Amino acid sequence: MNAKKLAGEKAIEYVKDGMHLGLGTGSTVYWSLVKLGELIRKGLDIKGVPTSKNTEKLSMELGIPLVSLSSINELDLTIDGADEASTNFELIKGGGGALLREKMVASISKRFIIVIDETKYVTSLGQFPLPVEIVQFGWEVTCNQISKLGCKPKLRMENNAPFITDNKNYIVDCYFEKIQDTKEVNNTLNMIPGVVENGLFVKMADVIVIGGSNGNVNTLLRSKL
Amino acid sequence: MNAKKLAGEKAIEYVKDGMHLGLGTGSTVYWSLVKLGELIRKGLDIKGVPTSKNTEKLSMELGIPLVSLSSINELDLTIDGADEASTNFELIKGGGGALLREKMVASISKRFIIVIDETKYVTSLGQFPLPVEIVQFGWEVTCNQISKLGCKPKLRMENNAPFITDNKNYIVDCYFEKIQDTKEVNNTLNMIPGVVENGLFVKMADVIVIGGSNGNVNTLLRSKL
Repeated sequence: MNAKKLAGEKAIEYVKDGMHLGLGTGSTVYWSLVKLGELIRKGLDIKGVPTSKNTEKLSMELGIPLVSLSSINELDLTIDGADEASTNFELIKGGGGALLREKMVASISKRFIIVIDETKYVTSLGQFPLPVEIVQFGWEVTCNQISKLGCKPKLRMENNAPFITDNKNYIVDCYFEKIQDTKEVNNTLNMIPGVVENGLFVKMADVIVIGGSNGNVNTLLRSKL
Repeated sequence: MNAKKLAGEKAIEYVKDGMHLGLGTGSTVYWSLVKLGELIRKGLDIKGVPTSKNTEKLSMELGIPLVSLSSINELDLTIDGADEASTNFELIKGGGGALLREKMVASISKRFIIVIDETKYVTSLGQFPLPVEIVQFGWEVTCNQISKLGCKPKLRMENNAPFITDNKNYIVDCYFEKIQDTKEVNNTLNMIPGVVENGLFVKMADVIVIGGSNGNVNTLLRSKL
């Protein structure tokens, strides 16, 4: 069984007619989008806001009607993947480089659903290097400031040149091993001049759908207490 | 007497041979740069890091040797202006649109000197609209989030089009009237996805040099206690 497909399709059960949906990016959300396309062909009426140029392109191919984020102040639901999701519903995102748009979309969503396969579900975050989006100007200085948090930041490369985000910024992947205090790291990173956004999603996920290689799907709901 | 000229020139007394200097932007720092150029022609040996393309151009015209921020991890001294400076050494900057680079440079400076004329010196910040640099994507959504802080954000325009920063972002000018808790506003703004940086400089200025229209110059030192 394809664990990603299981999780991606399961999340679509939360979609209702008339919703405005945030559409995430990645190999698990891919299956959510395919399923969504199928239901739309059968009459489902939704509108989507893509979190990346890749998702925008894929959605158009699948016949998913899109609206721009600019025309919306709130989304009913966002479905997105994660590079790591912890048992206390905290996330590392940005492996695909779309963390800023993903965080913007998630922040205006009434409900934020994460779809992952079981390999991404961890007891504490940090094995996956934390992506941090930074402005190009003075990036070495920004990296140096980031490293004071006790991590090793590494500029993300693609085809022998720095990887450029949809917002024309760089990404540094920060090797922490283990992130003890996610709220503190999230705040400290965003207060560094030159840091645009970071891939820690703290107290944002409401539901985590986990696909297992054995064919099972687990749906975890965060307590709102 | 020109109050800006008085303040701008006075700050140059802090400059010593061999220093790496952050070079600010604006009509008061202009006079610091002119004075610096004079001293360099007389033999002063310093290197400058400009905070904007305008300052870079002016510095080259004045014969000030420049190095890129990327080659430096620390600056001895930065001289910059402000749109407002308060009695407790907090600042609003970004009227000229260079707040991000100015904050990056200030954050790695051992000493940060502000030069202003007396009209910029206030008991509390907020009469001047706070500039906030935001990414272009979904800027309306980001503005809506910012407005929840109790201000009116307005997209900065130039020649009938949005003003674009050196980092290719937008600026929104936020009308607060009075900012009560500068630290709180600074943190909250930077945690909004889509906000790159804001113009509040909290606990950064070490010295404020104030030029008066009567020809007096006052130099205020922040207590490090």
